[in-house]
Amino acid sequence: MSNATINHQFKLAARPNGNVKASDWSHTNEPLRAPVEGEVVIQVLYLSLDPAMRGWMTDKPSYIPPVGINEVMRAIAVGKVTASKNPKFAIGDHVTGLLGVQEYAYSNGQGLTKVDPKLAPLPLYLSTLGMPGMTGYFGLLEVGQPKAGDTVVVSGAAGAVGSVVGQIAKIKGARVVGIAGGADKCRYLVEELGFDAAIDYKTENVAEALKTHCPNGVNVYFDNVGGDILDAVLTRLARGARVVICGAISQYNNTTPVKGPANYLALLVQRATMTGIVVSDYYDRAGEAAMVMAGWIQSGKLKTREDVVDGLDAFPQAFDMLFSGANNGKLVLKVA
Amino acid sequence: MSNATINHQFKLAARPNGNVKASDWSHTNEPLRAPVEGEVVIQVLYLSLDPAMRGWMTDKPSYIPPVGINEVMRAIAVGKVTASKNPKFAIGDHVTGLLGVQEYAYSNGQGLTKVDPKLAPLPLYLSTLGMPGMTGYFGLLEVGQPKAGDTVVVSGAAGAVGSVVGQIAKIKGARVVGIAGGADKCRYLVEELGFDAAIDYKTENVAEALKTHCPNGVNVYFDNVGGDILDAVLTRLARGARVVICGAISQYNNTTPVKGPANYLALLVQRATMTGIVVSDYYDRAGEAAMVMAGWIQSGKLKTREDVVDGLDAFPQAFDMLFSGANNGKLVLKVA
Repeated sequence: MSNATINHQFKLAARPNGNVKASDWSHTNEPLRAPVEGEVVIQVLYLSLDPAMRGWMTDKPSYIPPVGINEVMRAIAVGKVTASKNPKFAIGDHVTGLLGVQEYAYSNGQGLTKVDPKLAPLPLYLSTLGMPGMTGYFGLLEVGQPKAGDTVVVSGAAGAVGSVVGQIAKIKGARVVGIAGGADKCRYLVEELGFDAAIDYKTENVAEALKTHCPNGVNVYFDNVGGDILDAVLTRLARGARVVICGAISQYNNTTPVKGPANYLALLVQRATMTGIVVSDYYDRAGEAAMVMAGWIQSGKLKTREDVVDGLDAFPQAFDMLFSGANNGKLVLKVA
Repeated sequence: MSNATINHQFKLAARPNGNVKASDWSHTNEPLRAPVEGEVVIQVLYLSLDPAMRGWMTDKPSYIPPVGINEVMRAIAVGKVTASKNPKFAIGDHVTGLLGVQEYAYSNGQGLTKVDPKLAPLPLYLSTLGMPGMTGYFGLLEVGQPKAGDTVVVSGAAGAVGSVVGQIAKIKGARVVGIAGGADKCRYLVEELGFDAAIDYKTENVAEALKTHCPNGVNVYFDNVGGDILDAVLTRLARGARVVICGAISQYNNTTPVKGPANYLALLVQRATMTGIVVSDYYDRAGEAAMVMAGWIQSGKLKTREDVVDGLDAFPQAFDMLFSGANNGKLVLKVA
């Protein structure tokens, strides 16, 4: 490893219009260099593939600036320090942060967090103990605020965020209904994760299925997908419902404007509220969440599944899986 | 008055499709009768015309059941008791409640509130001291929660609700921008009501004007109109903004589905919240609000304007004014 001299990277070659094409990426390489004063070099071991990355490729106002053209694509990863001129990091330390889609990353240490590979397998720091887990934890508990007996619905339920949301809602005593694509995912939600019901949006009428599974309405809806599914759930809100807007994966590849929720006046009829969440607002409390969730994982209350794809070269194809729903569990790219 | 023997009424003849047509109403009359035990007869003096009435004509789930076909059209009104077999009400008492679009109403007393014509002119009980005033007061203060220095934007700003919202926001120390249709209304907002700025949506580009008038973004948006104006304001939200959904007058006559807010993901980017309000949730605190607002009216901090149209026969034409924006101030029909 330490003998590597070349760093392979994926850079953003063009701003995609609709679905991301192979030509929107450039596969580049450059010589590795030694760290300058204060810097560390990190070998990337596992890359996190997240729907939010699609938003980072678009040049419009958002919660962070977009990735620039010819810049290494932004991605969260875990890696191992291979060289260090920063007193806070030693060779061999494992760290997580925005390391990018590449084999080696340089960092001044800002935004890097050490992780312990003995406490949990490294991919877990990209899923339940990482950004998706924090998103689910704080989005559900701080914004959704489920109470025992509430009905909680989550879309993208078999994904990295959704599966955490549903399981935490169960831990809090709610009735949980997941919406996911495909019989396998739905079976996983009910049989392995203990959801009360699952709706397969690819074969079922979601509005009708919600009537069946949420006879008293929906108290909390955690939305990862937007579009028609958001509209369907809005028609089933209970009085005083909380809708958590976490993402809108159905809309990210649109070439037409985003489909706004036509049924948003349900917020008025039901005195309900719709609130956006960005996980970075809660990073100062990440330690608290990780401790609680690690406890749930150990006691078997919180299960986690990673879908690991092998090799940096597979990045473009693996990225597409996020939008076709081909992944089962948190999608992770094994780089080294 | 007490010699009347006939009650003229407007009933809902058909469920309108899009704009309400004359043929959707039937103008009927029936003989007056004496009250039965526990009942009062009320002569309707002033009828309130409100955009919400359009929603009451549509047979779909809402916060109250729709008006039935061949039922007297539902409306809030103030009137005078002309006959009573209810010990709580005496002949000559002035009352407000859902008296309907007719000259005389029968009531068992439920939902009737006595009002004092010596304290305020009767139409005021249909505007600032009535449902629209309560809607603005509780919607802004309980849901919008403006703080001193906040920028508050309100649409339908020259209307009965909007003008109360903007003036209360000024009282609370906010910078206030109103959106209304026409130069006269905009001048009224700035010159008479003390708004900091007004945007004429009929002649200005609302998104551009918001950039000019809300350089630090919008902290509270009180929405009465929906549609393109809601979308324009969403692009200007400040971090942690509160959007109050009070109505969507631009959408009520749609024959196509409601236009959902395409920019709703601004809620995520800005960690903002969108919440519906229905005034009846606050009726138990109406006395508190009326006392506070009556004080503001007396001290000249809260101005109010009623647009009084004469005669029950003018009801269909007056009702249309709500949607063309032809009224200046709270639209009231003088029945007797």
